[in-house]
Amino acid sequence: MRMVDLIEAKRLGREHTGEEIAFIINGFTNDQVPDYQMSAWMMAVCLQGMTEKETSMLTMAMKDSGSTVDLSDLPGVKVDKHSTGGVGDTTTLVIGPLVAACGGTVAKMSGRGLGHTGGTLDKLESVPGLRIGVSEERFKQIVRENGVCVIGQTEGLVPADKKMYQLRDVTNTVQSVPLIASSVMSKKLAAGTDAIVLDVKTGSGAFMQTPDEARALARTMVKIGALLNKKTVAIITDMNQPLGLSVGNGLEMREAIELLSGKIPESDPLYAVCMLLASHMLMVSGLAENEAEAKVKLTRALVSGEGLKRLEGMLKALGGDTACIKEPDVLCRVKRKLPVTLFGEGYIHAMHAERIGIAAQILGAGREQKGDPIDYAVGLVMHKRMGDRVEKGESVATFYVNAEERLEEALEMFRSAFVLGTEKPAHAPMVYDVITA
Amino acid sequence: MRMVDLIEAKRLGREHTGEEIAFIINGFTNDQVPDYQMSAWMMAVCLQGMTEKETSMLTMAMKDSGSTVDLSDLPGVKVDKHSTGGVGDTTTLVIGPLVAACGGTVAKMSGRGLGHTGGTLDKLESVPGLRIGVSEERFKQIVRENGVCVIGQTEGLVPADKKMYQLRDVTNTVQSVPLIASSVMSKKLAAGTDAIVLDVKTGSGAFMQTPDEARALARTMVKIGALLNKKTVAIITDMNQPLGLSVGNGLEMREAIELLSGKIPESDPLYAVCMLLASHMLMVSGLAENEAEAKVKLTRALVSGEGLKRLEGMLKALGGDTACIKEPDVLCRVKRKLPVTLFGEGYIHAMHAERIGIAAQILGAGREQKGDPIDYAVGLVMHKRMGDRVEKGESVATFYVNAEERLEEALEMFRSAFVLGTEKPAHAPMVYDVITA
Repeated sequence: MRMVDLIEAKRLGREHTGEEIAFIINGFTNDQVPDYQMSAWMMAVCLQGMTEKETSMLTMAMKDSGSTVDLSDLPGVKVDKHSTGGVGDTTTLVIGPLVAACGGTVAKMSGRGLGHTGGTLDKLESVPGLRIGVSEERFKQIVRENGVCVIGQTEGLVPADKKMYQLRDVTNTVQSVPLIASSVMSKKLAAGTDAIVLDVKTGSGAFMQTPDEARALARTMVKIGALLNKKTVAIITDMNQPLGLSVGNGLEMREAIELLSGKIPESDPLYAVCMLLASHMLMVSGLAENEAEAKVKLTRALVSGEGLKRLEGMLKALGGDTACIKEPDVLCRVKRKLPVTLFGEGYIHAMHAERIGIAAQILGAGREQKGDPIDYAVGLVMHKRMGDRVEKGESVATFYVNAEERLEEALEMFRSAFVLGTEKPAHAPMVYDVITA
Repeated sequence: MRMVDLIEAKRLGREHTGEEIAFIINGFTNDQVPDYQMSAWMMAVCLQGMTEKETSMLTMAMKDSGSTVDLSDLPGVKVDKHSTGGVGDTTTLVIGPLVAACGGTVAKMSGRGLGHTGGTLDKLESVPGLRIGVSEERFKQIVRENGVCVIGQTEGLVPADKKMYQLRDVTNTVQSVPLIASSVMSKKLAAGTDAIVLDVKTGSGAFMQTPDEARALARTMVKIGALLNKKTVAIITDMNQPLGLSVGNGLEMREAIELLSGKIPESDPLYAVCMLLASHMLMVSGLAENEAEAKVKLTRALVSGEGLKRLEGMLKALGGDTACIKEPDVLCRVKRKLPVTLFGEGYIHAMHAERIGIAAQILGAGREQKGDPIDYAVGLVMHKRMGDRVEKGESVATFYVNAEERLEEALEMFRSAFVLGTEKPAHAPMVYDVITA
């Protein structure tokens, strides 16, 4: 088999066999297929697509490129949740503890932030003393005792994905349903999960800018899950504004603690999306028959404080100082809190989530390059939502600032995220669709 | 400007500006754009195409990537001819001398054989003593005195093309009209020509397997020529069988000498295609008003022996032993001449030119890898044409063999080129179209 012939096959839009896909993925992982051939092949995949059969074979080949985690000795259905990346998305830190409080088993491996703001690991590390680098055995022990633990992805898990992602980033081959789907699903499978709830974002702050694009990705991932015998559900949620009000690592951890402390109303989008995702996690785990039953259980876990207790248990087990559970403000002590106003007044018609994320990144909350340091305390807290009225001179957010050097740049980026109008806009949905096999 | 954004633009099918194309080509030539980005971009070009405007800007950027040859101090219209590659194509060695004999100026830079059999340079080097590595000044002097000279492409001419071609070869991005057209035309422009006659092959032995694909490539090249103020004509010719009867370097040189010696009938396909291409070279040079006038002049040059004299002049000027002009058999003295029969009888319905080329390559006439040695004397001579009747046990070709090791393999490849049928097939055209601006 020759890579050049397999590139031709995909250039001509032909379907690969499983043997061919394994050849490509193993060859690339072992440096036998050079970058320049892989990038040509991935561009052909972007433009010619892949069938669901091909995509699931790709997922399996990627999963098999490295080591895998065996969670079979943990009790119950191991359920994982994955978001395709958004701004102000603190769902993992809320849902994991809530599902655990309802009897679920959430042994989750998470990634660093590749986007503008930190990933779940960075948010966890905003808690003083916390270290996510525990052994697999210790990780499983925490899950056994606490029902939930989130740690960093084990070294050696899906090396093909790491290598492919780096190349996709610089060759503009990110935007491809089969490549995104196989990247997500291979990591979930390698991490040993039994069931998966996917949160596929759509809107200005997401990979998939329209609900239809998000649906296409969601359907592909759900079908791969079904083909590979993993119960999979995908929820299409809105990312036309930050999901939570907080954008920044300590700020988002604080918001998660506040939600689990019952301080955030049911009408809040973050609350609503967390409850929906957690409901489906209970359903795929066999812990609830339907959404209504799941929501009753989840509400009970929230109100009783059991959810918060599970978050506390996890932070403590990972060496974190749990003072933040009672006093979350310790996570975001900064030199200066700056109310931010817009130029003009009116109703918020658009709130470009990606730009708001970049503004937080400029303040120091996210990395521009791999390995950059993060200031866990900085970021921003929104006071307004899509459709809200903004009066002249009224602050729409508060910036949490430590270093002032790039403040002007952050302000400019933040303000460019908004479009104001004179009429109140129609209400946009928070959830577009639920996709099941 | 960032390469990753330009890849995105082409992935989405957008049109590049001239500035963008220059950025890509200069960046790649200067090693600032890495192979993996270039291959992703070229795959996007393969699948999304390019407008004629983009293709001519690409041609110019490639031409400008290195040094160029200035032929303006040579007299008359400098006319070049290019074939898109075929089997048994000896046209350059026939046409160059004939056009020169009619007053044309043919200062041609040619390439090594990239295909199964040698290129024009390899055919020239089958003449003992001949060396194609002369200086540009000496080259021009030979053209001034003899009207025609063919040498190797000057080092440093269109370095972008060399680098791109190597990458296209291993990333399966050869098959693209804009990439083929810009590769051909940038080299012609850099070599200083005023007018170009293109021989675009179609059929089983050609890049462009159907006449329509060949027409698309021809139209693009003719339009680029017009946009860049070079008179350009393209002839679509058949490559469903070897053009000449000889396949192999010395054998093809012998066939060229025989044609120029008046020993090949007018009905012969090689003769017909040579006359047609040469006619258009005279017309674009302003040396003939129409095809009829051109053919009269060319026939006179052939019959008078003036064409052969120009070939002899060129061989001599390049240091070659001209004994072959009178006795061309010296070019193909081999240990064994083997008549080759097929299994079965009938009319030749198909004669896969590429496989016949590969058979000659296996006998030692072509390179499998760059730098491989060539045996100039070996190859094969066909005795049959498409549509001819083959009786049981009748030889269809003679193999010229020196090394016997791979003879069986060559025979098997050769025989697999043929499809015999019981009915005489319809006559297929030699020339499909003439494309002018």
